[in-house]
Formats: sequence, structure tokens, C-alpha cells
Amino acid sequence: MSDFPENATLGQMPESAILARIFPKLPHSDFTIVGPGDDCAVMRAPDSRFVITTDMMVQGPDFRLEWSTPHQLGIKAAATNLADVAAMGAVPTGLVVSIAAPPETTVSFLEAIAEGFHDACLELAPGCGVVGGDLSVSTVVVISVSAFGDLEGREPLLRSSAQPGDVVAVSGRLGLAGLGLEALFAGTQDIHPLLRSAQLAPWPPISQGKAAAVAGARAAMDVSDSLVMDASRIARASNVVIELDEAVLDGLASRLAIEVGVDAAHARQAMLFGGEDHALLVTFPSNQPLPPGFDALGVVRARVIGESPHVSMGGAAVAENGWNPYQNWNGELS
Amino acid sequence: MSDFPENATLGQMPESAILARIFPKLPHSDFTIVGPGDDCAVMRAPDSRFVITTDMMVQGPDFRLEWSTPHQLGIKAAATNLADVAAMGAVPTGLVVSIAAPPETTVSFLEAIAEGFHDACLELAPGCGVVGGDLSVSTVVVISVSAFGDLEGREPLLRSSAQPGDVVAVSGRLGLAGLGLEALFAGTQDIHPLLRSAQLAPWPPISQGKAAAVAGARAAMDVSDSLVMDASRIARASNVVIELDEAVLDGLASRLAIEVGVDAAHARQAMLFGGEDHALLVTFPSNQPLPPGFDALGVVRARVIGESPHVSMGGAAVAENGWNPYQNWNGELS
Repeated sequence: MSDFPENATLGQMPESAILARIFPKLPHSDFTIVGPGDDCAVMRAPDSRFVITTDMMVQGPDFRLEWSTPHQLGIKAAATNLADVAAMGAVPTGLVVSIAAPPETTVSFLEAIAEGFHDACLELAPGCGVVGGDLSVSTVVVISVSAFGDLEGREPLLRSSAQPGDVVAVSGRLGLAGLGLEALFAGTQDIHPLLRSAQLAPWPPISQGKAAAVAGARAAMDVSDSLVMDASRIARASNVVIELDEAVLDGLASRLAIEVGVDAAHARQAMLFGGEDHALLVTFPSNQPLPPGFDALGVVRARVIGESPHVSMGGAAVAENGWNPYQNWNGELS
Repeated sequence: MSDFPENATLGQMPESAILARIFPKLPHSDFTIVGPGDDCAVMRAPDSRFVITTDMMVQGPDFRLEWSTPHQLGIKAAATNLADVAAMGAVPTGLVVSIAAPPETTVSFLEAIAEGFHDACLELAPGCGVVGGDLSVSTVVVISVSAFGDLEGREPLLRSSAQPGDVVAVSGRLGLAGLGLEALFAGTQDIHPLLRSAQLAPWPPISQGKAAAVAGARAAMDVSDSLVMDASRIARASNVVIELDEAVLDGLASRLAIEVGVDAAHARQAMLFGGEDHALLVTFPSNQPLPPGFDALGVVRARVIGESPHVSMGGAAVAENGWNPYQNWNGELS
């Protein structure tokens, strides 16, 4: 039984009492040898390697408390990091989470974030859990996550391994999160639920990272900034040209337009240049069928003399537009 | 050659150009298989386990830009995390670093933080480096670090393994960081350099974590909140009483008082209750000499019936006072 009321704030409770409320909500990791509560967690790394990534979400540029529930914030913070682990072809094994929040924040708010982490891990990456963390105080809410995973003896899927002749394929949706953000900024009253959830509580195809690697994928990447920006990164790292198939993109854009009620040109724009979809972009050797859940979007070709690595569509280079936090944030916090 | 001036701000440059300036400053890790620039880093974990910790520093409660240079911020962010790895008896192998800063921050500011990480890793934990990171934007500067390390086949040093009869010992200084913070808050003009550097750019005895483990240490902990608070945590986790030797503490306090020019009672208060020293608190079996660089502070004893785990000195329980960010921050940012 706690000495503090259900609606107590962080400023009213000692850290130990706050952690006692949050710890039981956190997902457990099957890879834990020593869990939360010591100076470090101790994790198993079965193949003597591990992959690690980190991502920080800041109130204002990355989320608004007016738009997101704390449960959604937990899902988004988990999902964006898990997607980076999946994009290496790895299986997520654990997360560490640091949160800073104003003293007047309720402990219930942190509990709901923890439940978001719980639900995302349980559904997207079973066996993965939160194994450590840190609490601090700030004028704005900040959620910083590091995620790690196990390659199970496979080679990592790098951005630099795409080869001319590969098929470029995607698993997961494109365009929804960007359209969702536009609608939120526009103050749209009845945002399509698919757009809202894609932006506020993304649900990337985490298990497809391992599936792609097992199926012989060569290069992979989490689409976080935009299809074109992230494909351009693969193109540069692999020193190739990525040709997106305009007819395929137009077909997908038309379906998306019907599904969420926007016009096709708008849908196509969002698919190419919208950020935060966290779909999985993969190149596969062309001599084999794509694994289930992957759609071909184009091909990888060699550069010709005098040509830089880039993304092209319909015979023309596509400009690299996408999300830039330092230039695109309007300075608002809520 | 960069297209941007030396004093360009984050808001004036694309992320790729910012990273191109920062990456060369970062320390390299000897354990890296795939370094910064992909969705994840890939790290070696030689004994099929790794330890991991995370810690976030926020402008205002955790540091002031008026007091700290960015180089000192990098040292402090690295050192506090490395100290948690050392406290498991592990050798640090890598760090991931997320930084949020206002758009008007110069890239040179981030470069100086990176140089702080470089110097701390090179001197305190050779072979450890920064293997990944994230940049975001915020109204305040936030530095979030996760650190990981290798146990080299040894068992981790837990808070829960202290045993009655153990000697309680410390490596590193106590009291300096707390006295430094007091002097900074008081606006003291000529702060003693030892106090200033202990608070703003701590330099914990990282290699002593492995040395303690090799010497047969049983329990260990990074002293971050205060000697009494952190020793109390070992006492609770191990279900024992930790008896600090008053004569030893008084002797150390007298030496500290002379060294930095405060009175002895004040020095003793800072040694017991000051935070952020990042000394290494260890319990060793009593049947062996302490390894070099460790000073005995007391002993572990069993609880008697009706007694809770606690820290005592001179026959009386010592109250658990230390740093609480949610209650002790005065709301100021600079």
C-alpha cells in the first residue's frame, strides 16, 4: 500500500516511491540476467554481439501533449527504436528509457507511458522488455530510449550492401504518418483513425526485420524521415541508384487516397516525402520471390559515369525532402 | 570543405552536415563491428553478456550553461555513465548519445561536447567510444547517454551481495562535488579548482571497477546521490547494516577541510550527504588486503532482530539525505 494518493505528482514523491509505481507496469525481457534496480542491467548477448540504437522524443518538435495520450507516447517511443533494431535484421531484446518531466506531472502519466512500452513490446517484439532507466526533471517532457537486439548469428543488414539488380521492397505502410501530422497541424476535427494512429502510435512491422534477413535480404533501413530521404541514404551508402517504379507508387497512392479520403496526388506526396512511417525498406536479390508482407517498389541499378548516387522515378532524380527537426519545428510546445 | 561557416547554428544546417562536423570528434570504440551511421551500431560482447545503463542530464536541474563549458558537459555526461558500468565490475565498451538543443545553438557547441566525450573515454576508459546517437531540438539542452560494458567472464558486482563481515571501502573522492555545487549556488567568486572540477567535470576511478572485481569484491555501487543514500541502498538490497567508522570519516573530513578551505563539520556533511561524487563504493571480504586505491570506511554487519537495513555511524542510524531532482531543483535554467 502506497503512502501517496493515486494522483500524486513527481514533485510530491521520492524517486523510490515513483519507481515502485512504474516498475510493475514495465515489460519484462527474456534476455535479462540482472534487471532494473542496480547500477546497470546485465543482458544476454547469445551470439557474442548486439545491435544498439538510440532515439530521443522531445515535447514540442516531436510530440504535443494536446495530441498524444501518455500511452501513445510510450508506444511511439518504443516502436521507433524497435524499428531501428528490426532494420538491422535483429530481434529486439531490451530497452533502457530515460524520462524527464516537470515536477507537476502526475505519476499516473508515467505509468501510462510505461503501459505503452508494455503493449508495444508485447505485441511487436515479444521477449523484449525495459531493463533500466532514469528519471529527471525538466520544463518539457523528454523521452529518450536506447534499444538493443540480437542478430542470432546472421550478418547485420546494412545500408551499404544494396547491389545493382536488387529488388527494392517495403513492409509496412507509407504516407499515413505524414498525412496524420498534416491533419493534426491543420486542426482537422475528424481525422481518419488510420492517420491518427500512424502518427501518434506507430505500429511498425518489427518481426519483418528478422524475416527479411532470413529470406536473404541485402540492405535494410527504417523509413523514419521519408521514403525518398531514406532510400537516398541507402543509395549513397551503397554507391548506387535506386529507381522507384512510378506505376507501382501511383497504384499504391490511389489505394491510399481512397482508403483515407485524400486526393491521389496528395497521397503520393505523403508516400514519397512524409516522415515517421517506420516502414521497413529492404533490398533483396532479384532471383527469388519476396517474403510475405513485402511489396516491390523498384530496383537498384549501378551508377553511370558522372552520375551521383540518388533516387529516381520516371527517369528523373527525386529531390530529398523530409523531416528536419531543427528547421521544421515551429517552436510551439502544446 | 564545408559549405557552412564555423559559427553556423543547428537551425542553419541539415542534419547530415551537422553530423559530418561531429563524427570526427567522437572517440572510437575498440568493440565496434559497425559504427555510427546505420540504423544501429553492431558491438562485440565477448563473453555473451553485456551490462547497460542510461542517464539523462537536463539544463536547469542537472547543469547550467552559465557554469559549465560544453567540453565539461561532455566529460560529465560520459563520466557519470561510465561510473555505472564500472560499478558492475565491467569494462566500458561503448556509449550512445542523444542531444537535444535549441536551433540557435552553434555546431561548435556540439563539437565541444563531443571533445569532452573523447577526452573522458580516452583517459578514463581506453577502448570505449561513442558508437551512435540522435539529434533533436528543444527549448533546453538535454544530453542522454546509454553506456554498456563487458564483464570479461566475471560475475557482476551487485548491490545485493554485501555480506556481514565485509569491509566497506571507497575509491575516489567524497564531498568535493557537493561542496562545488554549494559554492556555485552561493556565487562564490574564487571556487577552489578541485571543487569546481569535481562538480562540473567529474573524473571517477573507472578502472577501479574491474580492479575491485578482480580482487574479489562482493558488492559495488556508484556514489551518485550521496554516500549515505547509496550505502543505504546496498544495505537494503543486501538486507544488512552498514556501519561507517566515525573516526575514519572525521579524519577524511579534516583532511578535506584543510585541502579546500572549509570547516571540518562542513566537509563531513558534504562527504556524507553531498551528491554527484561518483566515487566507487565496494564491499570486500575481510580476510584479504584492500586493492590499491581503496580506503576502508566501515564494515557490514547482520541486522539484529527488529532492526531494518540501514547505515549507522557512532552507534546511531544516519538519515538518508541526498539529491532529489524533483524536489531540489529551484526551477532556474541558466
